[in-house]
Amino acid sequence: MTTKDEEEPRISSLPPVSRPSMVAGHRRLSIWSSMTGGPASLDPACNWSSLVSALVALNTLLLGCAMVSASVFNTVSITSTHLQLYLITIMILSTCWMLYYTLYTVREHCAVLYKDGHAGPIWLRGGLILFGLCSIIMDIFKIANYVGYLHCDSPVKIVFPIVQAVFILVQSYFLWLHAKDCVQLQRNVTRGGLMLTLSTNLMLWMTAVTEESLHQTVLPQSNGSKASHRTAMRVGPMDDCECSHSACSIFEQASNYLYPFNIEYSLFASAMTYVMWKNVGRLVDGCHHHRLRFHLRDVLLGPISGLLVLVAGLVTFIMYKVDVQDKDPAKRDLALRMHYIMNSLAYVLMSAATVAGWVLFGLDRREYVSGKNPTRSLDVGLLLGASMGQFAICYFTIVAVVATGVQSEVDALNLASALLAIVQLCLQNGFIVEGLHRLPHEPTPAQTNAAPELYANVHATRSHSDSELDIKPDPIRISTVSQSHHCPTRLCWKRRALKEVCAYLMLCNITLWIMPAFGARPQFENPHGLNFYQVYMWVAVMNIGLPFSIFYRMHSVAGLFEVYVTS
Amino acid sequence: MTTKDEEEPRISSLPPVSRPSMVAGHRRLSIWSSMTGGPASLDPACNWSSLVSALVALNTLLLGCAMVSASVFNTVSITSTHLQLYLITIMILSTCWMLYYTLYTVREHCAVLYKDGHAGPIWLRGGLILFGLCSIIMDIFKIANYVGYLHCDSPVKIVFPIVQAVFILVQSYFLWLHAKDCVQLQRNVTRGGLMLTLSTNLMLWMTAVTEESLHQTVLPQSNGSKASHRTAMRVGPMDDCECSHSACSIFEQASNYLYPFNIEYSLFASAMTYVMWKNVGRLVDGCHHHRLRFHLRDVLLGPISGLLVLVAGLVTFIMYKVDVQDKDPAKRDLALRMHYIMNSLAYVLMSAATVAGWVLFGLDRREYVSGKNPTRSLDVGLLLGASMGQFAICYFTIVAVVATGVQSEVDALNLASALLAIVQLCLQNGFIVEGLHRLPHEPTPAQTNAAPELYANVHATRSHSDSELDIKPDPIRISTVSQSHHCPTRLCWKRRALKEVCAYLMLCNITLWIMPAFGARPQFENPHGLNFYQVYMWVAVMNIGLPFSIFYRMHSVAGLFEVYVTS
Repeated sequence: MTTKDEEEPRISSLPPVSRPSMVAGHRRLSIWSSMTGGPASLDPACNWSSLVSALVALNTLLLGCAMVSASVFNTVSITSTHLQLYLITIMILSTCWMLYYTLYTVREHCAVLYKDGHAGPIWLRGGLILFGLCSIIMDIFKIANYVGYLHCDSPVKIVFPIVQAVFILVQSYFLWLHAKDCVQLQRNVTRGGLMLTLSTNLMLWMTAVTEESLHQTVLPQSNGSKASHRTAMRVGPMDDCECSHSACSIFEQASNYLYPFNIEYSLFASAMTYVMWKNVGRLVDGCHHHRLRFHLRDVLLGPISGLLVLVAGLVTFIMYKVDVQDKDPAKRDLALRMHYIMNSLAYVLMSAATVAGWVLFGLDRREYVSGKNPTRSLDVGLLLGASMGQFAICYFTIVAVVATGVQSEVDALNLASALLAIVQLCLQNGFIVEGLHRLPHEPTPAQTNAAPELYANVHATRSHSDSELDIKPDPIRISTVSQSHHCPTRLCWKRRALKEVCAYLMLCNITLWIMPAFGARPQFENPHGLNFYQVYMWVAVMNIGLPFSIFYRMHSVAGLFEVYVTS
Repeated sequence: MTTKDEEEPRISSLPPVSRPSMVAGHRRLSIWSSMTGGPASLDPACNWSSLVSALVALNTLLLGCAMVSASVFNTVSITSTHLQLYLITIMILSTCWMLYYTLYTVREHCAVLYKDGHAGPIWLRGGLILFGLCSIIMDIFKIANYVGYLHCDSPVKIVFPIVQAVFILVQSYFLWLHAKDCVQLQRNVTRGGLMLTLSTNLMLWMTAVTEESLHQTVLPQSNGSKASHRTAMRVGPMDDCECSHSACSIFEQASNYLYPFNIEYSLFASAMTYVMWKNVGRLVDGCHHHRLRFHLRDVLLGPISGLLVLVAGLVTFIMYKVDVQDKDPAKRDLALRMHYIMNSLAYVLMSAATVAGWVLFGLDRREYVSGKNPTRSLDVGLLLGASMGQFAICYFTIVAVVATGVQSEVDALNLASALLAIVQLCLQNGFIVEGLHRLPHEPTPAQTNAAPELYANVHATRSHSDSELDIKPDPIRISTVSQSHHCPTRLCWKRRALKEVCAYLMLCNITLWIMPAFGARPQFENPHGLNFYQVYMWVAVMNIGLPFSIFYRMHSVAGLFEVYVTS
């Protein structure tokens, strides 16, 4: 105890760490964190720079919000060019900062001392690269299209997709490399930069959603007539301006199809930048990461039935896409009916499996992970937040169908599938959250004896960190004592059954992800919602809800994967 | 160490605490929290019931959201009666739960062991009672009005204000008594109940905002004609239904004036319920609360100049209200000009004072409060969140004025005052957050010697809680050692100057609160925004932004008060 009591007065008056030489810096950081007894997020400079960066984001977003509103409601004063200029400015600033950060990290030896193993998982980074690729292709199509209009339209129109492509390229590279970083040097600048990048992504998302909605509402209304709505990002025919090459309309069509991927890309990048921002200054204890491996040994029923659902889903999806294109209303009705039946069945089976998983959790008396884990809380928050999209779609559908009364079989199926989706979402959210909070099983029976030892070690570390200066500031305490029911050679039936459930749910979620991601839009093909809420409202709700619901399905696959591996 | 190591395996398998007998319960709680080494929010049952209650709120809100949208966009299928029935149901459920909680707490001896001193401060509870009173009066007017329509309209119309009045009565009583509670018994039920109450308040807020917007957009358009929009809460003339008594129109007018207070009431109640929800299961260490007293000794310049601003503000406000009623556009222009000049001046003076405060913070080398404090984080979050309202109004104004170009003196003043408001908001947010994170000065010189003792005590407690079972689980560690620059008899000039700045800013914020709270709406009286963004958009932004900006001014007065007292 004496060591600390003597040290504290001297050290507490140190200035906040900004760019110390590496050895001293590392030591000072550890001192700081062991002093405050927790992660570095408690130091005053952190509060201060968090506030400033939050204010930066707030101002960027609200100014952007006002400009987007103005560009929609007052197309004369604020044209799409103004909005594009604003977006170009913030994209260039973010790109510069990301390049600066990357270069700085490469040049500085040991610039990143801590990495958060939970942040930026492979599915998120993989999705980011995939959607980023689609977005860049979209931008190339846009550039090709606008080249045709260059003689009679603003050059900003062609600069915008170029800057956006560069931004996406740099950002994907940046996030691929640095998503796990817990930045310790230049924290203030990094917080500001990350918040700027976050608000740039949110602005691009907001603009894209608004324009997708306008595209879906304005274009159908002006069908046949020459009137069109010029928007900031959308490729569209301009008044009195003819394209100089013949491929314009092809490029335009193609880039319109790639639009939803761009919306999804902005969502992914926002989530990852936010996690990085939260991790700035965090000192993560790297030692509590079990290297758990994924293998399909011992599970059979789950993957097989999951694959059956996947195949059934793919078949109905293809049939749906073919039928729904048909002009014949009877065929479209058939397609919708099939889609709703398929979805309802999937929801029922998934709910049943989740309930079984619940029962298994009840029987499996594994301990809970204690100790705070910001990344886990964030993960749970993102899961719940993303599920709001699907919830909103369901409730809007239910209200519409119930209010007008069930008039046809399609209505009844629509209602049933919305209700079942809500049940399934609630159960699955609970299941994943419960699973993430359980302590992982020990990976191999050979480590059975290691548990009490680990326990003792953790305690040794703690008492150490209380009495001395220590570099492990945030030990996640694991109470692994009562965890002694291993099955020596094979997995015991409870664990096996839990793995079956997880594998099954994973494949079902992939099925439910594929359908909206690749263009099944029963919400628009069934005219009920459009007629009930009027076009603007319905399109707005769907364009905000659908990307979130796609994100949710991917996120829950990742969550279920983690539950699978740890159980 | 041995005590804990032996205790833990046995205790960690205990079921989550739900309704233990009090002595055993208290002991078990302390064991739990000392085991997990922090607040009780880390126990698994907490995660679980938080999730369930969050899902309850999510579902209630999204269903409500869909109903509100439907009642706006499809008045035929979802009438105001449907929406009112939904609101009545959730209000009755919330009221029942609040009554149950109150009765349960009264009957159970020592039901509430911990109170959070920061939660539910007097200004928030006072504001709640004030706005609640106005809301109840509004409900009485509504009832009186609807009695006249009873013979030809749905009786639900009269049941709604009755239920709402009872709900407001019960909720105000409940929050007045229990806002500080850190509930430990029946945590799951309490979390669910609080989230239901929170979503009820948010639903009432959402409905009120929507209807206020409709009232401001539909009524001006249907001026003169008989057409009107029937909405759920708003008193309004009904088609083909004549009032049976003569006072109808008076009651209608009167209740319309009280509407903004009802919106404000819902916001206050939501904030307080959210804080209570966050505090469920928290074990607060009561001993770190210095009883700091408020006195105006040693300060003079700040209060006097603040009072001058207040008087000037009141005078211009009254003149504004008189002039703006005038039909003469020249007089209205004069009123607006005066209002903008007054506001701009106030912003400039406040910004200057805040910068001075910043400099004083730099000179004053007080320590920062270390350790996590959820209430403080929440306070800062609420402050930043509420300031978004004013930020949004400012940015929408700036975009509108800049896009159309400054065409008159009023435009220039409008733009200047919006820009200055943004500067002032950023500076003031930073100032308050910085002030709240500084350690309080010792209240009296007599306690100068107490500091090292306190320090030693805190450490004794900590080492104790690590080795033994202890009932103080979350001691906020205060490093008070280097805090030894007291002025023996009088306050030193730095502290005095800081108090002057705080007092001045408090009075200025009160001035800026009074004007919008009592009906200065230059955003509507100046037609610029309405014309630029079209009526719907502008009214929606203002009706969401203004209540938040009023809330922000009150909240910052409270924050400044705390900074005044601690410096």
